[in-house]
Amino acid sequence: MKVQIQMKKNIKGKKESLKFNYVLDDIQLNQSENILIIYDQKLKKKYSKWISQFNYKYAVKAGEDLKNIDQFPNHIKKISRIAEDIPSRQMTIVAFGGGSVGDFAGFIASVYKRGVKLIHIPSTWLSAIDSTHGGKTALNVGGVKNQIGTFYSAERIYLCQEVLFQLPMDRVYEAYGELLKIALIEGGPLWNKIKKIQQLDQQILWSFLPQAIQAKMKIVNDDPMEVLGFRQLLNFGHTMGHAFETYYQIPHGIAVNYGLCFAIRWSLHKGYLSAPISIPYILDPRVDGLMSMSKIELSKLLFKDKKRDHKEKVNFIFFREAGTVFIESVTVKDIIQEYQRQGKNV
Amino acid sequence: MKVQIQMKKNIKGKKESLKFNYVLDDIQLNQSENILIIYDQKLKKKYSKWISQFNYKYAVKAGEDLKNIDQFPNHIKKISRIAEDIPSRQMTIVAFGGGSVGDFAGFIASVYKRGVKLIHIPSTWLSAIDSTHGGKTALNVGGVKNQIGTFYSAERIYLCQEVLFQLPMDRVYEAYGELLKIALIEGGPLWNKIKKIQQLDQQILWSFLPQAIQAKMKIVNDDPMEVLGFRQLLNFGHTMGHAFETYYQIPHGIAVNYGLCFAIRWSLHKGYLSAPISIPYILDPRVDGLMSMSKIELSKLLFKDKKRDHKEKVNFIFFREAGTVFIESVTVKDIIQEYQRQGKNV
Repeated sequence: MKVQIQMKKNIKGKKESLKFNYVLDDIQLNQSENILIIYDQKLKKKYSKWISQFNYKYAVKAGEDLKNIDQFPNHIKKISRIAEDIPSRQMTIVAFGGGSVGDFAGFIASVYKRGVKLIHIPSTWLSAIDSTHGGKTALNVGGVKNQIGTFYSAERIYLCQEVLFQLPMDRVYEAYGELLKIALIEGGPLWNKIKKIQQLDQQILWSFLPQAIQAKMKIVNDDPMEVLGFRQLLNFGHTMGHAFETYYQIPHGIAVNYGLCFAIRWSLHKGYLSAPISIPYILDPRVDGLMSMSKIELSKLLFKDKKRDHKEKVNFIFFREAGTVFIESVTVKDIIQEYQRQGKNV
Repeated sequence: MKVQIQMKKNIKGKKESLKFNYVLDDIQLNQSENILIIYDQKLKKKYSKWISQFNYKYAVKAGEDLKNIDQFPNHIKKISRIAEDIPSRQMTIVAFGGGSVGDFAGFIASVYKRGVKLIHIPSTWLSAIDSTHGGKTALNVGGVKNQIGTFYSAERIYLCQEVLFQLPMDRVYEAYGELLKIALIEGGPLWNKIKKIQQLDQQILWSFLPQAIQAKMKIVNDDPMEVLGFRQLLNFGHTMGHAFETYYQIPHGIAVNYGLCFAIRWSLHKGYLSAPISIPYILDPRVDGLMSMSKIELSKLLFKDKKRDHKEKVNFIFFREAGTVFIESVTVKDIIQEYQRQGKNV
């Protein structure tokens, strides 16, 4: 099947350009380009000098509420006033923050005056390894996460060691879930290195960024607007991951890690695994006591996941071996049954 | 200059498909495709039977306030609830209304679940001839018209005689402004026919639709996202047109008609016209008393026009002959001086 579509690209070219920097001061931004920086207010203290170079600034409180559609009119009106004297076609938005800031600022960039240039400087490991790449932007509507959004690529993405290495180690463990996911999908050299990890640390995670991002973008570029199905493979571990995240209020990356374990155990039970697999640092929801959701609670959470493709049907990503994952349509009931089976099987 | 961009196209292919129908019942829509119709509530009475075929319906009050960003969260939450049980990737939005309904519904379609299919059925001559085509969607922010929006093409556009021929003749005259504009830009056979119009009526306007739309789309396709400049030619008559529209509270198409006369008179004064030109049904702002704006009032209106490219600079479209218009950067001061000159010159 060949479908004639293309992501809405920035005006400079086809690919997001990715740059690795040691310190923020190494990032070359041309302030004459009229840059508006949208940044997580938490970063203000640590990077006040660097932020002060921008003529146009908008500080936000990171988190899901930033993406709440009810706040959007207020935000866009304030931004319009701040950017009022920037000529229409000469504006760039720099998003400096984690996943929620990137989603929010990316959405703004994609619709403001029908699209202005976008640069990402992710400030969390999770956004550096995953959400910043691939051009998805999003807002939440009435409690439904990412109900509206756009596909809109950044022109440039800067990953900065100075910023990421200041984060507490907890953030490293959170990002590992997405690293593990992409390594299991990609297989090959990336997986061969991941499976030998002895000790997670910042230097290790930093060293994996180029390959992990490349592996994600390979899938994204095959199906940028998620119409062919390939891109859904990136949901590996996320169906149950989202349920764990919401119900047990745990960080996204940790929840994905549990979700991967759930998916692999299910694949094993179904006989899909061609050989046993040993995975470092994978978190088992059975061991960690995440098996207490009732049938009704889990069903409710699974239906809220807007990625389902048919009523009561969910595209679940199963695992065969490192480098081979595949979509199988299952019912919500199937997932609940498997959840109950795994719960009994501690 | 070659820039690698492409409009965000619908998943079925590259071009908007345009269809001409006599009656609404001729329009073939597959209701199993899960269609949500967003329609002007004024149309409910006349077309209630046709509208009743849709399982998912959302009636709106047409007009600029529909595009007000402050109302957007409320609209999108209602629409999310109505469309709740439509599977994510199988939704189509049908926009049935005039320009504001098309801008609004088009914007919704472009962001809802990161983009669903869009079909336009314009219900006014102005939208049938102009705004429906070319994929611009928009909302207003804090009084600034079209401050946010997307480039998002409809999959299909249906022009329906039954709907358009029911409109009062006033609407025909309003649409003539945009018809005249595109004919002057296009020149050739379209202009040669327009200049011979003896009497404006619905049948005449209907017969011009295919050529007028084709002429617009030729320009749009050269510069779909308005980055190269060609698409700005479609602003011919609109710089002063918007000022007339806002200040004198006259319909858009009529204001454009006056704006065209202003631009042509200025081109004449600057010596750009290579030969005198006779234009049927063009409205002269001098004759109709639209020359009473003060310097300050006009300056304010011109600055609100977000299409200006530089502070105090405006890309004004001048006219040489039918088929040749061009962009020249002028200052707001230049426009005001010319407005005063034309005002004295009745």
